Amino acid sequence: MDERLKKQLEFILEIDKEKNILRQTHLSGHGRRENDAEHAWHMAIMAYLLQEYSNEPVDIAKVMLMCLIHDVVEIDAGDTYAYDEEGLKTQKAREEAAKERIYSLLPEDQKERLTVLFDEFEACETPEAKFAKAMDNLQPLLLNHSNDGGDWREHGVTERQVYGRQGKTKAGSEKLYEVTDQLIQEHIRKGNIKGC
Amino acid sequence: MDERLKKQLEFILEIDKEKNILRQTHLSGHGRRENDAEHAWHMAIMAYLLQEYSNEPVDIAKVMLMCLIHDVVEIDAGDTYAYDEEGLKTQKAREEAAKERIYSLLPEDQKERLTVLFDEFEACETPEAKFAKAMDNLQPLLLNHSNDGGDWREHGVTERQVYGRQGKTKAGSEKLYEVTDQLIQEHIRKGNIKGC
Repeated sequence: MDERLKKQLEFILEIDKEKNILRQTHLSGHGRRENDAEHAWHMAIMAYLLQEYSNEPVDIAKVMLMCLIHDVVEIDAGDTYAYDEEGLKTQKAREEAAKERIYSLLPEDQKERLTVLFDEFEACETPEAKFAKAMDNLQPLLLNHSNDGGDWREHGVTERQVYGRQGKTKAGSEKLYEVTDQLIQEHIRKGNIKGC
Repeated sequence: MDERLKKQLEFILEIDKEKNILRQTHLSGHGRRENDAEHAWHMAIMAYLLQEYSNEPVDIAKVMLMCLIHDVVEIDAGDTYAYDEEGLKTQKAREEAAKERIYSLLPEDQKERLTVLFDEFEACETPEAKFAKAMDNLQPLLLNHSNDGGDWREHGVTERQVYGRQGKTKAGSEKLYEVTDQLIQEHIRKGNIKGC
């Protein structure tokens, strides 16, 4: 087998490990914890179906690919819960090291392309990155809503924390932020999200 | 919330169930059984990375979306193992009913679009469908190879059966079929795949 294809297949096998990285979100129907690969799959389909609500026109193939690969770094860096303030302090450094190791398995041109795409997602400045981030926020919100806000209750999450994260959806989609806001308000009323 | 968005979100929540549909393939490292959502995620990334090996030029966004949605029908129809000859006889009818129920949750235009895409995948005649099918074959082959062919041994799979399925990879990619063939031959030699 030639070197290029060998490297590609090695990366493909490596990312299989993403299926073992568990998130704090639970599947609908009060299911088990979700893993990163499932989350990414769900986000990519959501991006396709909801693209009409993006604030700005997007290259949907780019958004989908961003969604699919955005958590590959967590194979080494682990999942950092959105409301884990200690973990968030070291997240960047852990993910940078992971990015270098994992994407280096690929041929140079593909390493470069996926690294640039990951960095674009993280920087959250382009229309594609903003919309992908909106999916990253909306996907667990929908699951958590379907489970009566159990993930918020379990972690004692506050209104300030939820708006700190979910507020960023607005940059990607005003329309989806409206829905987000309605759901947050409902869960504050029900006591699933603590008042500030 | 308007009716259109409500329908889209309902479909998005419904497909969460795909994470509970287990396949016969095991994750690398002799892990647990893989589910359909993980398999689809893996296939979509593979399609992107390996597109240069497609026999014909492909619209990669279309291939990726095909990969992502091709198993949604299994929420109702269940996974049919590639070498389960009884199950394969009823697979088509079960999947047609599932397709109608599940895609009908979407607004009409999106139902139409995803149904057409699913049918295109199943018919396996266009360059995109052939390449997506090649991913559908190659993905479990790579995992099974990484696990010393355990899935083939467990099911007593024969050379004739493996070539019956994996031979179709050739229509999508001659190059990836070469690798497939090498791996199959290795596992026949090792006794993991039974001779005809």
